[in-house]
Amino acid sequence: MTTPLSPTARSTVRRGSSRARTDRAELYAVLDAGLVGHLGVVLDGAPVVLPTGYGRVDDTLYLHGSTGAAILRAATAGAPVCLTVTHVDGVVYARSSFHHSMNYRCAVVHGVARPVTDPAERERGLAALTEQLAPGSWDATRRPDRRELAATAVLALDLTEASLKVRTGPPGDDDRDLAAPVWGGVLPVRTVFGEPADDPLLPPGVGVPARVRDRVSPAG
Amino acid sequence: MTTPLSPTARSTVRRGSSRARTDRAELYAVLDAGLVGHLGVVLDGAPVVLPTGYGRVDDTLYLHGSTGAAILRAATAGAPVCLTVTHVDGVVYARSSFHHSMNYRCAVVHGVARPVTDPAERERGLAALTEQLAPGSWDATRRPDRRELAATAVLALDLTEASLKVRTGPPGDDDRDLAAPVWGGVLPVRTVFGEPADDPLLPPGVGVPARVRDRVSPAG
Repeated sequence: MTTPLSPTARSTVRRGSSRARTDRAELYAVLDAGLVGHLGVVLDGAPVVLPTGYGRVDDTLYLHGSTGAAILRAATAGAPVCLTVTHVDGVVYARSSFHHSMNYRCAVVHGVARPVTDPAERERGLAALTEQLAPGSWDATRRPDRRELAATAVLALDLTEASLKVRTGPPGDDDRDLAAPVWGGVLPVRTVFGEPADDPLLPPGVGVPARVRDRVSPAG
Repeated sequence: MTTPLSPTARSTVRRGSSRARTDRAELYAVLDAGLVGHLGVVLDGAPVVLPTGYGRVDDTLYLHGSTGAAILRAATAGAPVCLTVTHVDGVVYARSSFHHSMNYRCAVVHGVARPVTDPAERERGLAALTEQLAPGSWDATRRPDRRELAATAVLALDLTEASLKVRTGPPGDDDRDLAAPVWGGVLPVRTVFGEPADDPLLPPGVGVPARVRDRVSPAG
């Protein structure tokens, strides 16, 4: 069971509100399908937006980074953040330039991140981050040691204030343009995984494991 | 001929500075290859990050949106913005969770956007935006009329304060981990275009034009 999204004023989708979704399971699905989000923080009064990995456990997103990174330091100190995860699903071709568009799924999370200090929660967060990027890697690879942990900031961002916007389907052309001999439709956009490339330093006999091989797209 | 990037304090890459690039042609290439950027603006003291299309003409990025959108209104009013364009190129599998990473190209542009009011420049900007999303569509489709133009804000963002960060290549594992019987390497990530889907309202006899067909990936 999931609870519906409960948007605040800030997370209420205003533009194109017919594209707003309110199902928490849909929000999870969009977040779980992503490799990176774009994290915004205000530094010296100006926005800074950088790509970042993330991991989800229930209604908590975990972020991490070097303890020396300015954007992480600001977030750790309690600055409000915004994390946005976007999947582009198609280029929407219309009969007018005005109605050209994109099909997409976009999750936006607002909040203040909480520095994670409890060792067990830090481990859960880092495991979620690793598994989001590379499923199976947390158990298959060496865990962080004390020095690595000390260099890593882990932050938790609650999914309390989140919104989801989705566009699907054909162009929304004006009636006056529909008879024009101009193609309209959708060019699908997909993210695919190609053939894995071995590290040149790989010892002989270490093959690509199923956890990697199984991600390769059919036409990879 | 291109001039090198001239980063300010804000746009100087600090973390992982070996990944910073200073070639303006590389910046152009990363921007020109993107479908969306993530635009950050500060609203009521908090960052808001939303995906947006863009188009480039020389050293100017054009953005557009509904004149009613809060993030566009703030940018139009002179609020500082940050536009970030990221391509994920690979998942980097290491022998330790700590050294898992991504290969990517990321352009970050800081600045204050300039509202574009000159009709000729507005047209150039909108053409660049349409062509970035759908090459060939500006000439092939109906141009914006007076009402559509009135509803559209066009902003210009100079590429003066921009940075580029690129990671390529295999994992950066610790020497102590290299002998482990754990696979290390890179799983490539690509964005591909699939088979175009006709708008159900398409009149008979209007086929997919070459400007769309030619974008379909070989294994589309």
